[in-house]
Amino acid sequence: MESAPTVDAASPAALLRLLMDGRPRTRADIVAETGLARSTVRARLDLLMAAGLVSDIGDDVSTGGRPASRFAFHAGARQVLAADVGATHATVAVADLGCRLLAVEQIELDIADGPTVILPLLVKAWRELLPEGGAPVAGVGIGLPGPVEHSTGRPNNPPIMPGWDGFDVPGLVAAELGVPVLVDNEVNLMALGEHTTAFPEAEHMIVVKVATGIGSGLISNGVLHRGAVGAAGDLGHIQAPHGGDVLCRCGNTGCLEAVASGPAMAARLREQGVDATTTADVVRLVRAGSLEAGQVVRQAGRDIGEVLAACVSMFNPSLVVVGGLVAQAGEMLLAGVRESVYRRSLPLATENLRIVASKAGPEAGVLGAAAMVAKHALSPEVLDVQLAS
Amino acid sequence: MESAPTVDAASPAALLRLLMDGRPRTRADIVAETGLARSTVRARLDLLMAAGLVSDIGDDVSTGGRPASRFAFHAGARQVLAADVGATHATVAVADLGCRLLAVEQIELDIADGPTVILPLLVKAWRELLPEGGAPVAGVGIGLPGPVEHSTGRPNNPPIMPGWDGFDVPGLVAAELGVPVLVDNEVNLMALGEHTTAFPEAEHMIVVKVATGIGSGLISNGVLHRGAVGAAGDLGHIQAPHGGDVLCRCGNTGCLEAVASGPAMAARLREQGVDATTTADVVRLVRAGSLEAGQVVRQAGRDIGEVLAACVSMFNPSLVVVGGLVAQAGEMLLAGVRESVYRRSLPLATENLRIVASKAGPEAGVLGAAAMVAKHALSPEVLDVQLAS
Repeated sequence: MESAPTVDAASPAALLRLLMDGRPRTRADIVAETGLARSTVRARLDLLMAAGLVSDIGDDVSTGGRPASRFAFHAGARQVLAADVGATHATVAVADLGCRLLAVEQIELDIADGPTVILPLLVKAWRELLPEGGAPVAGVGIGLPGPVEHSTGRPNNPPIMPGWDGFDVPGLVAAELGVPVLVDNEVNLMALGEHTTAFPEAEHMIVVKVATGIGSGLISNGVLHRGAVGAAGDLGHIQAPHGGDVLCRCGNTGCLEAVASGPAMAARLREQGVDATTTADVVRLVRAGSLEAGQVVRQAGRDIGEVLAACVSMFNPSLVVVGGLVAQAGEMLLAGVRESVYRRSLPLATENLRIVASKAGPEAGVLGAAAMVAKHALSPEVLDVQLAS
Repeated sequence: MESAPTVDAASPAALLRLLMDGRPRTRADIVAETGLARSTVRARLDLLMAAGLVSDIGDDVSTGGRPASRFAFHAGARQVLAADVGATHATVAVADLGCRLLAVEQIELDIADGPTVILPLLVKAWRELLPEGGAPVAGVGIGLPGPVEHSTGRPNNPPIMPGWDGFDVPGLVAAELGVPVLVDNEVNLMALGEHTTAFPEAEHMIVVKVATGIGSGLISNGVLHRGAVGAAGDLGHIQAPHGGDVLCRCGNTGCLEAVASGPAMAARLREQGVDATTTADVVRLVRAGSLEAGQVVRQAGRDIGEVLAACVSMFNPSLVVVGGLVAQAGEMLLAGVRESVYRRSLPLATENLRIVASKAGPEAGVLGAAAMVAKHALSPEVLDVQLAS
């Protein structure tokens, strides 16, 4: 049995959630739908309107009776600050509560400079992006390229982020901006972004990111599956069937990331005498029609598919979304992934499985960061307490 | 963002859920907690009491004021019929809405006899177990040893259940008993049973069953993860690292089940000249202190752990529960599983991971079947409609 709700099931936040289905309602509609007392509905709508979260969008003139005001959710009532931070650059954005991006900027950085350098860069970028006289800021969402303990917002033993382990990211940013700060792994947020904005109907999905690293994010029953310590989806350091004794940057050997990440592909190209160092080089070569690069990317897709096949058997998603820089190079990666997954997974698990390219694209992570904040800001735990004070 | 609720958030079912936390409340408590109109609370409590689901448990005399009636959830108000069906026997039970087993019986069967033989056996057993003059029956829950499309209750290409594919299990049983019938995979229900009755605090867990077959059930964010077509958790037919070309009953080669299931262990023992055919033989030998059997079971544990390691990296559970007949033979299986998982999974994913033996034991599946029915019977979608008619 599920546990009982910890908050009032008929709170202002619950009323707002009713209105978030997009259908405007009159007071009488709400009374009929919820069984709340007329006075309660009036009081809660007043609270939500005073907070700007609900608008009176005019009279309902569809019936012959006395016209009555209709009320609707107002996504523009708050702004959300979002950032998707990678190893070498970040996407920084301002969005509304409906995950519409109002302003976006790319900034260059080196994650190894540590949080006391990087986080002020983000704060500066948000301050520049925020329009003067805009709606109040509901909160900040940050995606980082490593495991994050979501409840505290602290990175948890991140392999490529020297200086970040255990750092109080929300503390530093909240001290600057004075609003709640939520932090998560960037691939989790990429999954949330794809799910929220592009594939809301997919109850169970795996979003794979192939770039300098390899990771994935899981959606289970329509909700992000973060795992016990925020480490779920770590596809990159599972043993690859043909991983052999290739050394991985994590210290182990034979990890998927050691054979199929962008840098691993570049290394394979160098062995064939092709000049390539970074993930971007590989992508550039594929786009320029390099046969060698195309073959290397396709083989990486097969290697990823072999590890993913077991995950598909176990998780039985209806959808696998492949994104990240390498996926943007075209169909080769996806073709390789499909080849292995459809060959190796259980027939039943692949019967209705779609394996597709990212739809939210490079903005998936920042959209997910915005979605995380909007969901939090409008949750009963936050909104009801705020409105009651 | 999550989708808006499809039902009234302040319905009788929501009120009942409030009371299911075990704390009795007065009418005034409920009005204060929910913001519902006093008349609504009174009407809904009257409905729930008329249905027997809420009891007036006497006056609150803790304050100096006028004593007021206190109301509590009454788990005994309905009976639930549950069955956990395996290849060769079934556990059949009657439970209350709190998953307390009121009567249990084991029956022998052969799943290959097909649904028109097996299902009437279950119905007969339930009829014999049901006490005369007992509470009304809320529904039936059945676990089957194969993938099940949960929304229709029809088996979906089950490999060891000839005659069951696509069969309308709920249709046949409901025609006999006249109550709602829910069907799921038995390992899913085992996971639900362990979670509900033994490990309710584990938000993310994997329950592994090792017997004639090998399967698992996943709990994500406190909820059963069934997957897109009900095939999630199919550990047994993932390629085992040392699976080689051992033929599996599914038609593939090298599946985990082909090297680490009960019959596979028995085959390995026969190669060493030990007389063993079934899973029960292996268990009996281990219990009798056979060194060979102990070693074979431990190696099977290692093999299972190697496949499970990738699942742990991907799913990041806080808990792995190992059950099924082989797990009941003692610590050897668990020791082997631990050995591989702690060696092969990511350090972060195993930092706080516990790998333990089943607590719900042989009754985990039937407890899960009862939990599934109780949750359904008390859901807003069912209960509110029922009370409104």
